[in-house]
Amino acid sequence: MFNEVKSLNEECGVFGVWGAENANYLTYLGLHSLQHRGQEGAGIVTNDNGKLMSYRNLGLVSQVFSDQKNLYALTGNSAIGHVRYSTAGENKIENVQPLLFDFTDDQFALAHNGNLTNAITLKKELEQSGHIFKSSSDSEVLMHLIKKSNKSNLIDKIKESLNTIQGGFAYLLMTRDSLIIALDSNGFRPLSIGQLENGSYVVASETCALDAVNAKFVRDVLPGELITINDEGMKIDHWTTKTKLAFCSMEFVYFARADSNLLGINVHSARKRMGRNLAEEYPVEGDIVVGVPNSSLSAASGYAEAIKLPYEMGLIKNQYMGREFIQPTQELREKSVRQKLAAVKGVVKDKRVILVDDSIVRGTTCAYIVKMLRDAGAREVHLRIASPQFKFPCFFGIDIQKKSELIASHKSVEEMRKMFDADSLEFLSEEGLVDAIGLSKDRNLPDSGLDLSYFNGKYPTYLYDYADEVEKDS
Amino acid sequence: MFNEVKSLNEECGVFGVWGAENANYLTYLGLHSLQHRGQEGAGIVTNDNGKLMSYRNLGLVSQVFSDQKNLYALTGNSAIGHVRYSTAGENKIENVQPLLFDFTDDQFALAHNGNLTNAITLKKELEQSGHIFKSSSDSEVLMHLIKKSNKSNLIDKIKESLNTIQGGFAYLLMTRDSLIIALDSNGFRPLSIGQLENGSYVVASETCALDAVNAKFVRDVLPGELITINDEGMKIDHWTTKTKLAFCSMEFVYFARADSNLLGINVHSARKRMGRNLAEEYPVEGDIVVGVPNSSLSAASGYAEAIKLPYEMGLIKNQYMGREFIQPTQELREKSVRQKLAAVKGVVKDKRVILVDDSIVRGTTCAYIVKMLRDAGAREVHLRIASPQFKFPCFFGIDIQKKSELIASHKSVEEMRKMFDADSLEFLSEEGLVDAIGLSKDRNLPDSGLDLSYFNGKYPTYLYDYADEVEKDS
Amino acid sequence: MFNEVKSLNEECGVFGVWGAENANYLTYLGLHSLQHRGQEGAGIVTNDNGKLMSYRNLGLVSQVFSDQKNLYALTGNSAIGHVRYSTAGENKIENVQPLLFDFTDDQFALAHNGNLTNAITLKKELEQSGHIFKSSSDSEVLMHLIKKSNKSNLIDKIKESLNTIQGGFAYLLMTRDSLIIALDSNGFRPLSIGQLENGSYVVASETCALDAVNAKFVRDVLPGELITINDEGMKIDHWTTKTKLAFCSMEFVYFARADSNLLGINVHSARKRMGRNLAEEYPVEGDIVVGVPNSSLSAASGYAEAIKLPYEMGLIKNQYMGREFIQPTQELREKSVRQKLAAVKGVVKDKRVILVDDSIVRGTTCAYIVKMLRDAGAREVHLRIASPQFKFPCFFGIDIQKKSELIASHKSVEEMRKMFDADSLEFLSEEGLVDAIGLSKDRNLPDSGLDLSYFNGKYPTYLYDYADEVEKDS
Amino acid sequence: MFNEVKSLNEECGVFGVWGAENANYLTYLGLHSLQHRGQEGAGIVTNDNGKLMSYRNLGLVSQVFSDQKNLYALTGNSAIGHVRYSTAGENKIENVQPLLFDFTDDQFALAHNGNLTNAITLKKELEQSGHIFKSSSDSEVLMHLIKKSNKSNLIDKIKESLNTIQGGFAYLLMTRDSLIIALDSNGFRPLSIGQLENGSYVVASETCALDAVNAKFVRDVLPGELITINDEGMKIDHWTTKTKLAFCSMEFVYFARADSNLLGINVHSARKRMGRNLAEEYPVEGDIVVGVPNSSLSAASGYAEAIKLPYEMGLIKNQYMGREFIQPTQELREKSVRQKLAAVKGVVKDKRVILVDDSIVRGTTCAYIVKMLRDAGAREVHLRIASPQFKFPCFFGIDIQKKSELIASHKSVEEMRKMFDADSLEFLSEEGLVDAIGLSKDRNLPDSGLDLSYFNGKYPTYLYDYADEVEKDS
Repeated sequence: MFNEVKSLNEECGVFGVWGAENANYLTYLGLHSLQHRGQEGAGIVTNDNGKLMSYRNLGLVSQVFSDQKNLYALTGNSAIGHVRYSTAGENKIENVQPLLFDFTDDQFALAHNGNLTNAITLKKELEQSGHIFKSSSDSEVLMHLIKKSNKSNLIDKIKESLNTIQGGFAYLLMTRDSLIIALDSNGFRPLSIGQLENGSYVVASETCALDAVNAKFVRDVLPGELITINDEGMKIDHWTTKTKLAFCSMEFVYFARADSNLLGINVHSARKRMGRNLAEEYPVEGDIVVGVPNSSLSAASGYAEAIKLPYEMGLIKNQYMGREFIQPTQELREKSVRQKLAAVKGVVKDKRVILVDDSIVRGTTCAYIVKMLRDAGAREVHLRIASPQFKFPCFFGIDIQKKSELIASHKSVEEMRKMFDADSLEFLSEEGLVDAIGLSKDRNLPDSGLDLSYFNGKYPTYLYDYADEVEKDS
Repeated sequence: MFNEVKSLNEECGVFGVWGAENANYLTYLGLHSLQHRGQEGAGIVTNDNGKLMSYRNLGLVSQVFSDQKNLYALTGNSAIGHVRYSTAGENKIENVQPLLFDFTDDQFALAHNGNLTNAITLKKELEQSGHIFKSSSDSEVLMHLIKKSNKSNLIDKIKESLNTIQGGFAYLLMTRDSLIIALDSNGFRPLSIGQLENGSYVVASETCALDAVNAKFVRDVLPGELITINDEGMKIDHWTTKTKLAFCSMEFVYFARADSNLLGINVHSARKRMGRNLAEEYPVEGDIVVGVPNSSLSAASGYAEAIKLPYEMGLIKNQYMGREFIQPTQELREKSVRQKLAAVKGVVKDKRVILVDDSIVRGTTCAYIVKMLRDAGAREVHLRIASPQFKFPCFFGIDIQKKSELIASHKSVEEMRKMFDADSLEFLSEEGLVDAIGLSKDRNLPDSGLDLSYFNGKYPTYLYDYADEVEKDS
Repeated sequence: MFNEVKSLNEECGVFGVWGAENANYLTYLGLHSLQHRGQEGAGIVTNDNGKLMSYRNLGLVSQVFSDQKNLYALTGNSAIGHVRYSTAGENKIENVQPLLFDFTDDQFALAHNGNLTNAITLKKELEQSGHIFKSSSDSEVLMHLIKKSNKSNLIDKIKESLNTIQGGFAYLLMTRDSLIIALDSNGFRPLSIGQLENGSYVVASETCALDAVNAKFVRDVLPGELITINDEGMKIDHWTTKTKLAFCSMEFVYFARADSNLLGINVHSARKRMGRNLAEEYPVEGDIVVGVPNSSLSAASGYAEAIKLPYEMGLIKNQYMGREFIQPTQELREKSVRQKLAAVKGVVKDKRVILVDDSIVRGTTCAYIVKMLRDAGAREVHLRIASPQFKFPCFFGIDIQKKSELIASHKSVEEMRKMFDADSLEFLSEEGLVDAIGLSKDRNLPDSGLDLSYFNGKYPTYLYDYADEVEKDS
Repeated sequence: MFNEVKSLNEECGVFGVWGAENANYLTYLGLHSLQHRGQEGAGIVTNDNGKLMSYRNLGLVSQVFSDQKNLYALTGNSAIGHVRYSTAGENKIENVQPLLFDFTDDQFALAHNGNLTNAITLKKELEQSGHIFKSSSDSEVLMHLIKKSNKSNLIDKIKESLNTIQGGFAYLLMTRDSLIIALDSNGFRPLSIGQLENGSYVVASETCALDAVNAKFVRDVLPGELITINDEGMKIDHWTTKTKLAFCSMEFVYFARADSNLLGINVHSARKRMGRNLAEEYPVEGDIVVGVPNSSLSAASGYAEAIKLPYEMGLIKNQYMGREFIQPTQELREKSVRQKLAAVKGVVKDKRVILVDDSIVRGTTCAYIVKMLRDAGAREVHLRIASPQFKFPCFFGIDIQKKSELIASHKSVEEMRKMFDADSLEFLSEEGLVDAIGLSKDRNLPDSGLDLSYFNGKYPTYLYDYADEVEKDS
């Protein structure tokens, strides 16, 4: 993956708008600002007076619509869009969303951010009763359940179906006359509603997309909510009232864009507090503080301020790195990695560097970055990680589903330190992370309000299809 | 131009290597790390045992060589490459360098960073004697002079020709048996030499390109030098000894990549010192310090440290902005600008923001950024510019050649402040800039060693073809 | 549609191979030679030891696989492929075949040439029982029926499903261990089996694709046959024995490539005989005989030989016409049509031209061609059509489903003659066509063995979902 | 080269228009219809009130302008355009024409069809006096000579320069106020002038391009003429009066489009007469006559009519063959050739085939085609070539410049027959060719009026730089 040096991918971003001119272009802008949530593919479905039409393809938003005709052919005043994460080797356009379903006498489109934990079981059951799936993703299960439901109206069908699926989901559904929004009962994934100047509603995975279309923030979607937006306005309903907030902590640590507010909390500020707390928990003597660009820069500046050391640009990222970049032959491999990220010799030479990274997942780039700093003349490299040890896989929307891929799950801190050749290595405590985010404080919650299972293995819900896997993998 | 919000473009970057396997790929890597110096076009000429071959096209390095065959077809152990700046509307491949000249019984290639001040006169004279130019750039004049020279050997022809041209130039010339390097007598443009592990020499506009190919820094090319690299090694000669260092100060302020060292001075560190000096000269009461990404981040962090205020990410740049991005219709224009740069509401809301920018050129984006911050809730916006007022055009390699384009040349500070709707506006003093860069100190020079004409109109050399223009334009 | 001046489109071409190295490239070659049967999209599914993988996209075969990686990534020794016809405005990749179905524990791919006449009814029924379709084409119905069948083994499920669908179909099904071939009970569409040198079986819509991969013709697939090819060889079975040959006469008249043999009869030769019969039925005084390129050239040369007049190239087709061709503004429209087809002034000037066309569908280009010939100086233009009047739509695999689109269904011959401004206009008789094709003679059939409903409205089978439409449209 | 199976390439086609709206699109249409004369690259220069602007690139006309913006950016009412032939491996955009020369105070563009025989000498001389060439083609020499001329006005400079160059040339020159046309003193290359409805003049390599823009044919450009078209109309002048018509016979045999008239003679008709004469000279017993598509179809039909045998489509060309076609690995090579051209089994099986080809150049495909016909079941294959033996290279505009490449120059007819495995092989006589073209008859010339040097080695002019080569090569 070329965008970040870390192989940790969000599954998706979603955007929707109802009743606004240029719905196609607004959705394009919205998706563009959510591009960090997925670079594999993108698509838009618009609704032109009850007729749904779609365009989607593999690539970045700007590449998918590099021929403008494909965007402007999507007429109508309402739309939903989706960006999908990037994996190597998979170029299946079938999985690019939104999925548009053409029934003989109806149309229905769906965009999903998250991951269902009982999709495998449900899919198998549905197939046994004759259902055929068009994509290999789990997102389509909901549509089949709705189609199969015996309830008399669509909202009841949807409610029944949502009560059947398990896991993390932020769903946007476009019908001929409404935009329907649903969030899982734990609110794992972010989803916010805004309003354009003319009063039209927009919905997006992150508030940065509301800003991108100049929409005013209205409210976050809450766990268990089922919201219908149509020409009569917005109606907030619930598909379940058994809810318990367990918002994905990694959205704060790594995924979300720094300018987004998640549940009212600014991401950059939270990250900066993670850096501050980390400095208080694990101070160290050094000359300069350096962050791994781009995701760790906020935490690094927080660390630097707290410990009163200069915050320096000791690593620099090439902003022109793209998919077309020619990968070198094996012998030239090392030179290529240097193209994404470079150590700034003039800054780190002869310095004791405190290197702040937001998290360690596979650990493959950590060793490389430390070496790069040492080659550039750093006298010492102290690694400080602005989140706890990432030991447990995620089943609610991030593509890490194996413990074996997580270095912290099978190495001690000291083993990792040696592997990375760092002079010291420390991780932010769970308490430090919870405090930095400040959700429980902010909302006066009985607990953290966060899904911290990455760090402690305590999953907020039963894992269904993945329950055995977690056991086995341990 | 999509890469930075400021319309200030470097003319070029150059890279060369002699006697190394994979010369094509090394040059590709080198140019890739110099991409910030020019995004309009790129090209490579390789030398395979005396046979020169070329590929060049419009676009980014990775786009020009998106079909790898075009790169790998350039065989040989030596190469020069070039990246060229981006201008709107001009898509003339003729001007993309290196220029390869196929004579009936010889070949010669040339890559140029800079601008000649007597090229118009020379070109006219040459045309009158029958010469025909293949490009509309001034870079080609040197080749015509060499061709026309009556001296008996190539080096003497080159020396004679270099003594005829005036202005700023860093030239790489590839002949069938040598890589020849020349720098103007003021050393306006940066040019550094490094060595690969196997001893092969490389040369590049900035040291970040030496790092990119894992080359060790050897020395900077000095004003007036004429260096020949061939199979027998490197030979340092001079085409003139009447030299006076006047290095482009804007390379430190804006152009160069933060990890490069210019004349031994790290760019990020110099920028940070500009920020510090600015804080000392013009402190102001505020809550947070914010830099305009990406070029002003170093200066902003320096300001923040000096004034002991938090350095915050109050503006964020979308890293997925590319040429394919669909420009909106007029009515949606404002939304589009927001795509490149966004204010971070959660950070700036209710805050007194000290906004640090590296320089003000046309001033068009300044007003927009202040408005964006105010819309995002900033209570006050104090603008601090980490360089003096940019009042005079450049004729040595940057595409600003008209005073009328420079807002500071016809507006007072107070007029600009009002225009930008800033609560205050201050510029770093010339002394502050000179001190921050530290070149005279470092080298014990009689004066600054810098070209500061942007700020004070004192051009280090006579302007020839442009002399009248500066007068007239005033 | 740019390939022919006539808007008459075949729905598809199919190709399959079992047990041969380079199955991907063989299928690519096969599809390439079937390109005339469909230019909208193309796809290939290969089978690598039981794992099915797919690539498909919009465009010509060579465009779909312009990035060779996409072809070579399809590993395995067996494959099926599909080319799909071109319609304006529709760029739905969902409809490009082969359709690959990923079940939780099985895979299945399907390629279809033809049109089902009860698909609408079946689809509606299936949807009511909860099925969801991935494409808007009718091709997918078969898969749903197979999935739903209660029979105990796959072959029985397929037989039951084939007995449920109605209409014209040539189906290739790829399972994990077999390539299964089915033809409808009337044998509307051509389908032939060949063998590579190593004994591997291939199957293709036309024999030109067998030639393209150097395969020996083995046999045509017969109406009602269900053929299984796997590692044990070829097994010929029947899904029904109630069959009656009614081969599409328009395949002979227009669709098939001249070098293909349909049911053992060479297409070029049949067309030439159509021309001869036409000359015998409707001779006329003239100077030269001219055919409309490319499909009418055989008939024109037959006409010329029979009437003993020179066969001349009075019209010429630009072979470089492609999709990228820039359509002119309205005022320049006429000049553009001239780009596809041009009259040869030097040939037709002052001549009495006998213009032979294979058929008249909408009639839009006829008037234009006659005008072009007159503008080029033709003294007389006698139009001779090498097939009967095309009055009735097709429901078995060609995209003309409305009588109103067919000029002969609502205009008399004299009205058409006037419209086209021809000096005379005559059509080959039905008997002349049947005799020219010679199928009944060749096979000693009780009737023509052809579907002649285009001309006489006598559909070989009940039309199901379209029965009313034909009535209503009349 | 994918367009024809024969590797014989025309060097170029040119088109020009003065004073017409949509000059850009008209030139696009004109070039499109001249595409057969060159597929390597294309370009257009327009003149908008004295400002010349250019776009050119590698590829077909429709590919070069696949982004319409590039065409519509070329504003103005006058234009010249050029298509260039295709060679393998060379992708030098520098050589794509028209060449646009930007002088400090003037602009000048040039498009050239032909080849200069003293360009090497002239180029060397010019280089010695300091001139630098931008392209490796010979077309640029004229511009340098004009630039160097001491004459007082442009027309005199051009006349002087034209009198300095030797060889074959059809030149279009665009100045700020005129379109200037020049043809060499032998008139080797075709060049015709037409008039649009509004009276604007157009000029093109072939009349098919006049037809393409709906222009009326006015006159052919004659040897030695220098024509100026500007706002005052057309002025016909001469740069020399020592002229002798020696029109390229291969234009009639192979290059020109069948619908073009060359010197008033229709190409298709001439080819047909070649076929007739060939039949009279070399009749043979056979069952059918088959032509090699597309260039030999006219000759084949002429042969068939003369010998009273059926003219059949025994070979078919795939019209979808394009540059993107994936070339197979060595082992699959044979299958690929079959993709361009296929034998029609149903036609040739058990037949004695008389195969008519327009010419034999390298002979490589001949053997292949005979084998293909035999594999398809042909009982006998009699090869008849509708032109004399091609024994001598061309130096006036076709890319065959070595005798060693021409099989007829070093093999006897019997040797060739054996090599091709043909049952018999005969070539049209020189007299037969001259008679078929009919130029001398038509114009009452003292000799043929044709350049027949391909066949008899008698070059109409001294060969200058190539004189030795022809000797040496013999």
